Amino acid sequence: MNHFGTALRVSIFGESHGSAVGITIDGCPAGIPLKASDFETDMDRRRGGTHAGTTPRKEDDIPVFLSGLFNDRTTGAPLTIIFENNNTRSSDYETQRDIPRPGHADMTASQKFGGYEDYRGGGHFSGRLTACLVAAGVLSKKILQYAPGDIICSAMLIEAGGEDDIEKGIQKAIDAGDSVGGIVECIIQGLPAGLGEPFFDSAESLISHIVFSIPAVKGIEFGAGFSAAKMFGSQHNDAIENNSGKTRTNNAGGISGGLTNGKDLVFRIAVKPTSSTPKEQQTLNKRSGEIELFSVKGRHDLCIALRVPVVLEAVTAFVLTDLLINAQYIKRVL
Amino acid sequence: MNHFGTALRVSIFGESHGSAVGITIDGCPAGIPLKASDFETDMDRRRGGTHAGTTPRKEDDIPVFLSGLFNDRTTGAPLTIIFENNNTRSSDYETQRDIPRPGHADMTASQKFGGYEDYRGGGHFSGRLTACLVAAGVLSKKILQYAPGDIICSAMLIEAGGEDDIEKGIQKAIDAGDSVGGIVECIIQGLPAGLGEPFFDSAESLISHIVFSIPAVKGIEFGAGFSAAKMFGSQHNDAIENNSGKTRTNNAGGISGGLTNGKDLVFRIAVKPTSSTPKEQQTLNKRSGEIELFSVKGRHDLCIALRVPVVLEAVTAFVLTDLLINAQYIKRVL
Amino acid sequence: MNHFGTALRVSIFGESHGSAVGITIDGCPAGIPLKASDFETDMDRRRGGTHAGTTPRKEDDIPVFLSGLFNDRTTGAPLTIIFENNNTRSSDYETQRDIPRPGHADMTASQKFGGYEDYRGGGHFSGRLTACLVAAGVLSKKILQYAPGDIICSAMLIEAGGEDDIEKGIQKAIDAGDSVGGIVECIIQGLPAGLGEPFFDSAESLISHIVFSIPAVKGIEFGAGFSAAKMFGSQHNDAIENNSGKTRTNNAGGISGGLTNGKDLVFRIAVKPTSSTPKEQQTLNKRSGEIELFSVKGRHDLCIALRVPVVLEAVTAFVLTDLLINAQYIKRVL
Amino acid sequence: MNHFGTALRVSIFGESHGSAVGITIDGCPAGIPLKASDFETDMDRRRGGTHAGTTPRKEDDIPVFLSGLFNDRTTGAPLTIIFENNNTRSSDYETQRDIPRPGHADMTASQKFGGYEDYRGGGHFSGRLTACLVAAGVLSKKILQYAPGDIICSAMLIEAGGEDDIEKGIQKAIDAGDSVGGIVECIIQGLPAGLGEPFFDSAESLISHIVFSIPAVKGIEFGAGFSAAKMFGSQHNDAIENNSGKTRTNNAGGISGGLTNGKDLVFRIAVKPTSSTPKEQQTLNKRSGEIELFSVKGRHDLCIALRVPVVLEAVTAFVLTDLLINAQYIKRVL
Repeated sequence: MNHFGTALRVSIFGESHGSAVGITIDGCPAGIPLKASDFETDMDRRRGGTHAGTTPRKEDDIPVFLSGLFNDRTTGAPLTIIFENNNTRSSDYETQRDIPRPGHADMTASQKFGGYEDYRGGGHFSGRLTACLVAAGVLSKKILQYAPGDIICSAMLIEAGGEDDIEKGIQKAIDAGDSVGGIVECIIQGLPAGLGEPFFDSAESLISHIVFSIPAVKGIEFGAGFSAAKMFGSQHNDAIENNSGKTRTNNAGGISGGLTNGKDLVFRIAVKPTSSTPKEQQTLNKRSGEIELFSVKGRHDLCIALRVPVVLEAVTAFVLTDLLINAQYIKRVL
Repeated sequence: MNHFGTALRVSIFGESHGSAVGITIDGCPAGIPLKASDFETDMDRRRGGTHAGTTPRKEDDIPVFLSGLFNDRTTGAPLTIIFENNNTRSSDYETQRDIPRPGHADMTASQKFGGYEDYRGGGHFSGRLTACLVAAGVLSKKILQYAPGDIICSAMLIEAGGEDDIEKGIQKAIDAGDSVGGIVECIIQGLPAGLGEPFFDSAESLISHIVFSIPAVKGIEFGAGFSAAKMFGSQHNDAIENNSGKTRTNNAGGISGGLTNGKDLVFRIAVKPTSSTPKEQQTLNKRSGEIELFSVKGRHDLCIALRVPVVLEAVTAFVLTDLLINAQYIKRVL
Repeated sequence: MNHFGTALRVSIFGESHGSAVGITIDGCPAGIPLKASDFETDMDRRRGGTHAGTTPRKEDDIPVFLSGLFNDRTTGAPLTIIFENNNTRSSDYETQRDIPRPGHADMTASQKFGGYEDYRGGGHFSGRLTACLVAAGVLSKKILQYAPGDIICSAMLIEAGGEDDIEKGIQKAIDAGDSVGGIVECIIQGLPAGLGEPFFDSAESLISHIVFSIPAVKGIEFGAGFSAAKMFGSQHNDAIENNSGKTRTNNAGGISGGLTNGKDLVFRIAVKPTSSTPKEQQTLNKRSGEIELFSVKGRHDLCIALRVPVVLEAVTAFVLTDLLINAQYIKRVL
Repeated sequence: MNHFGTALRVSIFGESHGSAVGITIDGCPAGIPLKASDFETDMDRRRGGTHAGTTPRKEDDIPVFLSGLFNDRTTGAPLTIIFENNNTRSSDYETQRDIPRPGHADMTASQKFGGYEDYRGGGHFSGRLTACLVAAGVLSKKILQYAPGDIICSAMLIEAGGEDDIEKGIQKAIDAGDSVGGIVECIIQGLPAGLGEPFFDSAESLISHIVFSIPAVKGIEFGAGFSAAKMFGSQHNDAIENNSGKTRTNNAGGISGGLTNGKDLVFRIAVKPTSSTPKEQQTLNKRSGEIELFSVKGRHDLCIALRVPVVLEAVTAFVLTDLLINAQYIKRVL
């Protein structure tokens, strides 16, 4: 359901046009310093408002701490952070009930919840909830500082609209009056070997599980990924070159047998083009039962992938923090 | 850890060279007819012994039911199935402790478990445990027959060694004296709309979680997947063409907003080349601290991807059965 | 940690003197009608302010719905309810850090969380959080109306201060200037047979698990309970008297073999006397390392057991609702 | 369902008259020495065969290790232990389907599983499965040796048939030709303070959860327990007597605010009289629909409580081990 994690656990709640979206993080080590300003950089990256192709909601995105924080440190009790929704324009969405937006969750949400769902702006399925994921990421990155070594988790958009030159890809979207997708790569340096579990909770399993909770992600590959399927085994195996364990390649992407192997953990995700495109599209009017032409009028990104890297970092940092606490690399109390 | 699922839950155990491998399935509806012969077809597909490029262990793979079955029907109590290991040749692996096989879990398992792991034949990380997954799949497919409609889950190797012609790909491996990878596609027909949960337990999340527990899988993509990242939004959205909901395309792969949408659920996985290749490779001798040349002498597949489809079907059928029970499409007692 | 349940799941958060306490209920069926006024009766019962022996905080206890409610019905998405803390008087507790209150969690919380805990008014361990449990109970009772039959869950204080006459027991406390404990009995009528699981999730296991999350509970017994230990088997067994299954006794308390048996589910809990008693008591001053005399100055109940019944009903209704959804007696969507 | 625990997790399976009963323990630290002879003492205590009033099945109770053990040490992979059922006499139970035994799970199991359950000898609900719990206890006690300090978990029958003199209580049963119940006390010495979680996973919650999975338990109380309900607060609070934290009383039973407080953890459980009594009793013949007289012919204990202490130690040791691993008092790898 709407929770994830074992030693460290998140529960997410809220809707695009409700009073707030929020997240509860349970199992957080006690004593981690945390204050509202720690969230600014990553919340800004998520908003991405200054980049051509992004036109986000003008939300303040100031975290409100309902619990779990005392004298600017985590207490070990559940930490609940909410972001109030100030800038909702429900009128944009009044017709949405009848005309599900192509590519969105509108139709499936209605099928699942029998029409009781909050359909305004995607409701609980809205990208607005990724603000909560980013908040969990800010905290996770803080906790990671208490692990041995120097763990750095960073994600970057490496392709947009089929172009390796991001600006060119975005321009393609602007010129076409259409939306485009992209590919985001995430690299985590400094991890110890042995994280993950042999079978169902392999490092790849846990990462992919949470990564597919990010809206618009449709694929993930680790290390050589899909190109591994075209290699010979002798090419793909990362041969050890000297007795310090150095390898020339990292086709495994830092994971062997489901466990981290001490090399950089590397994976890429495919982000589909924003479903809300300015182009006219066919869809079903549920009330009339007729096919209608539909085009998006509200504020929307031409390339949602621009805003994904910080969210990807966040969920990855979260799942690794959970693994590191479980493996006792991070203490329960500072 | 070594369990997965909610309403239907599996726990897996065993090692390649222990006395048996096994699986416990908890939450199975009561009254499902089940007998040993039901397992033959899928266990044979997994062994894949007759296909060029596969040289599996000669195990009987006869399921032994320790619990949960009475008068050839499931009882509702935990169902434990084991497969005895008869054909283990530990002598093949005696040197394995010192010389971890490139591309295998040997090194990371040792790092995780401090050298206490059963290192013979990959131990708990062995592909031998996929026999248990296939067994869970046989049961899941049986249970699926009690869901409404006609749910069919089938997987197929669609590329081997970079070739769409599978035989050609395998021949490439034989000719090169090397191993090759492949791509397996899985299609599930007949699913109701609305399976999955909005955030952390999206259909993609749950499927990818369990799929990455299959050894050698390094990527997964749903519907258009990675090629979606190169499309315009107007191309990618599956436009509804008439008022029965028909769409011309299925770029979403049957999942919208993390929920099944009633179309075919379609995904592909990348299987890396078998790590055990007959080619000589460099690896570290942990005892001597020197780099050595290593080549595989034991029985091994040139293209493990040939044996993956039935395992992929199994885990997919399992996770969908779990979702269908949770969503009350399948009763707890027949 | 701070969550409980499977098909229906709660997560609790908040501190006595933080901005709010709250609860997220995940897995709630879609379409349940719910509004703030539904909470009044049970929130009033919990406050218990008019009864002699109770002197609760003067909180408004008005539920604020952050998510999961739309047009006065549950949406199927996580439902988060908070209660703001308006009436906190931190000055009462300034010395609490140094002088842990006897019988309270002050000392153990500090040992667990290394001094980072919010120590004001018991922090996350405060009875204030039972407001959240009561809220979950209000919702659960609503959901129970959608189960077949007529399920009624009611709890009553049956003994206070060792007296069956409650008023007499309370007067004993007032006269002694001390606090007293009590015994609360809970009866659930109308349950179907077969709820619970054979082993670890027996009906007794699940109920006792959540019941011991209520502060001050130190014992639980089902049916004849501790007196069963003094009976002969022929006395204890509930003999069937006629072919409609009627029994003269209900020593099993409605649970046989861990499963509900269709009779009334009956259990009793022991509530210790309020730890905060006006009497002077010895305790350790952590700062000085000296033993000091301590007596409670703030507002406190003489008999916390007076306020427990509605909380007990709430957690019991919750766990039974979870079991009924799992057993498919209650639909996921109305 | 049939699993329990977080960092350390057990899954139980098997039926009284199936081929075996067994348990899988996942999350066990790697490197714990373990061999079959370690189980003898506790398995013997469970059989209790030499004591008057116990007439157990003559099973060998030799643990068979299917997985997770290598060179006589745990590997960190799931450890599966089975006990073969050799001494089953199904003929005793042939009429059981029609005539559910009073006080047993026969009727409720049939109601839950629709008649598909293995009804022979109680099937999955049989006390036979406590052999698996004891096995988990043997391992847990071994693991506890790797925690700091000296943790000792011991349980004792302190009352039988209402008599503090156990032999007298048993004689009462023999004289009456009836079964009797008893009270078992469990004391755990040497625990660190701070184990347990604030709300749903209080130490009392977790212990009571697993304790009620032991057949025939109908009540539990911690410290002063039910007698606390009759005390004044000034009596019940365990006043600190000197600055080393010494208290004269232990009414809290070693748990304050749901967390262990460093004192002895003390609790008692009520065990009902063996349901199978030699006395004639009324029950319903499901086939004929008539009330019949029923008396037990097979082997059965007159006082099942005699055999409970070792089972109680086992489940308590298990849950405390789980808490100690979670709190990082015990390492994942020796």
